[in-house]
Amino acid sequence: MNLSSPPAPTFDDVSAAAQRLQGVAHRTPVLRSTSADESTGAHLFFKCENLQRTGAFKFRGAYNTLKQFTPEQRENGVLAFSAGNHAQAIALSARLLDMPAVIVMPEDAPATKMAATREYGAQVVTYNRYTEDREAISRRLAQERGMTLVPPFDHPHVIAGQGTAALELLQEVPELDFLFVCVGGGGLLAGSILAAQALAPQCQVVGVEPEAGNDGQQSFKAGHIVQIPTPHTIADGAQTQALGQITFPIIQNGAFDMVTASDEQLAQALRFFAERMKIVVEPTGALAFAGVRNGSVDLRGKRVGVLISGGNVDLPRYARFLAE
Amino acid sequence: MNLSSPPAPTFDDVSAAAQRLQGVAHRTPVLRSTSADESTGAHLFFKCENLQRTGAFKFRGAYNTLKQFTPEQRENGVLAFSAGNHAQAIALSARLLDMPAVIVMPEDAPATKMAATREYGAQVVTYNRYTEDREAISRRLAQERGMTLVPPFDHPHVIAGQGTAALELLQEVPELDFLFVCVGGGGLLAGSILAAQALAPQCQVVGVEPEAGNDGQQSFKAGHIVQIPTPHTIADGAQTQALGQITFPIIQNGAFDMVTASDEQLAQALRFFAERMKIVVEPTGALAFAGVRNGSVDLRGKRVGVLISGGNVDLPRYARFLAE
Repeated sequence: MNLSSPPAPTFDDVSAAAQRLQGVAHRTPVLRSTSADESTGAHLFFKCENLQRTGAFKFRGAYNTLKQFTPEQRENGVLAFSAGNHAQAIALSARLLDMPAVIVMPEDAPATKMAATREYGAQVVTYNRYTEDREAISRRLAQERGMTLVPPFDHPHVIAGQGTAALELLQEVPELDFLFVCVGGGGLLAGSILAAQALAPQCQVVGVEPEAGNDGQQSFKAGHIVQIPTPHTIADGAQTQALGQITFPIIQNGAFDMVTASDEQLAQALRFFAERMKIVVEPTGALAFAGVRNGSVDLRGKRVGVLISGGNVDLPRYARFLAE
Repeated sequence: MNLSSPPAPTFDDVSAAAQRLQGVAHRTPVLRSTSADESTGAHLFFKCENLQRTGAFKFRGAYNTLKQFTPEQRENGVLAFSAGNHAQAIALSARLLDMPAVIVMPEDAPATKMAATREYGAQVVTYNRYTEDREAISRRLAQERGMTLVPPFDHPHVIAGQGTAALELLQEVPELDFLFVCVGGGGLLAGSILAAQALAPQCQVVGVEPEAGNDGQQSFKAGHIVQIPTPHTIADGAQTQALGQITFPIIQNGAFDMVTASDEQLAQALRFFAERMKIVVEPTGALAFAGVRNGSVDLRGKRVGVLISGGNVDLPRYARFLAE
């Protein structure tokens, strides 16, 4: 059984999500860095969702969605397919709400991610990513077990939940001129736009994609959803092929611009975060700051929010980025 | 010209230091971690001074001291000898207060630390650590140039400044049962004790040293300052040989206990911080949590503050810790 598609989310949904997340999600800190300000000429405010529960903003959308399940949905539980942050977000949310969870992951997913997902109490079902279709497997499992499938971004409750990160930032830091947000499927960007339109209409929201995966930029320019092959980039959380049916119109209507950052720029930003700001950021989580640093938009003298989306990266891989 | 030795600091001095640091030092976040709580059975509150300006708590004591210079002292400037966090703390404080600063560093100090110190506008004077005496050099320079020498820990204004980190934690988190603090020369521990005695008398303050450098533990047990040879430990910020004349009596009188952590426990804690809490912590900064984790004190069910002192570690070295 899938969730039926409710109407597109509004700011009221973001606001209601913030209520649901109160005392459950961390209110993540907003960090400043003199050296980041000096190197960009802007006043930067870093909203640290890498310090969120499960290490990424995804917890917000997952919990907000599961919290709205009907009693029958709760009893049968939730199913998700993800090798990344959505998996852990769904698993922890299900545990907190005391419902069964099945996560469909490729059998060659990093062992640490599978272990973390199981640690949160979810059942992990694996598939061969070269010979099997994860969506078909997920649909079959969901149908067999009566579980509700929660997609990683293209769902109004997920989008509304993700918007609460920007909501907190905009409540805490007045008069932002810009807000930079990473883009995979566009859930975080769409939610951020809803928050900014209501709380800080002067604030221009900019989406940042990996250079190799600029389907969102293409879609934004074309005025319709452009699909690309799975991009090769170190930003594994942004290897989506297309924006969603719900996220795209919000982005098309509300984003100021869509820009990109190269893998090398991501790696540099990641090292800056470690060396100067003492925080662990995953490659995808460094997209927004890389987009700020590479001069895509003139930000001199501006007050700029930078959304750091997550910090989940295997330590050996992270160590290699730092040692480069 | 050296600062004359004022009387031992009190909580009023910590409180006054907090006023001086308002809007100058970061009010660093207090982070929680479900997995840290589950693995220790305690309720842990991490005060993140690795996210402080210059990457360590040392900024608090340095700024508090320099801010109290006389006009003549300001004009002639400040001198410090340090290859570590005290250097950058003095350099930035001097820049903010618009006074000259000279930092005496060994000529083989990491290039990044020298560069960071120069970046803050300080003059770096190097010496050969095998053939020259840094204290003699510093005293000579201070005398020649009329500069005020600020020691890294054994000074009442430095101690009072360091105490503001615990003050913020105790104001934000009520009813702590314990507070774990790393110990080198004892400035941070002494300041934390002053804050706890005034704000949370029920809170037991525990000092944590590297196993190889347990001079503080020995002194605490002996009732007088015990000096040891420079210890071999990865906790480079705690390679001091003895507590200070001012820090020791405060610690002797006010600490609940002094415990130790091994280098391997520090490395494990450092990896935990990166993997689960997404923060970069230097080996010395992991002492308090390593002391919590190794069971030196029974903390089950207790509310425990953990002071993370700093995050300054060269990336290649840090990468090696993570890859182990």
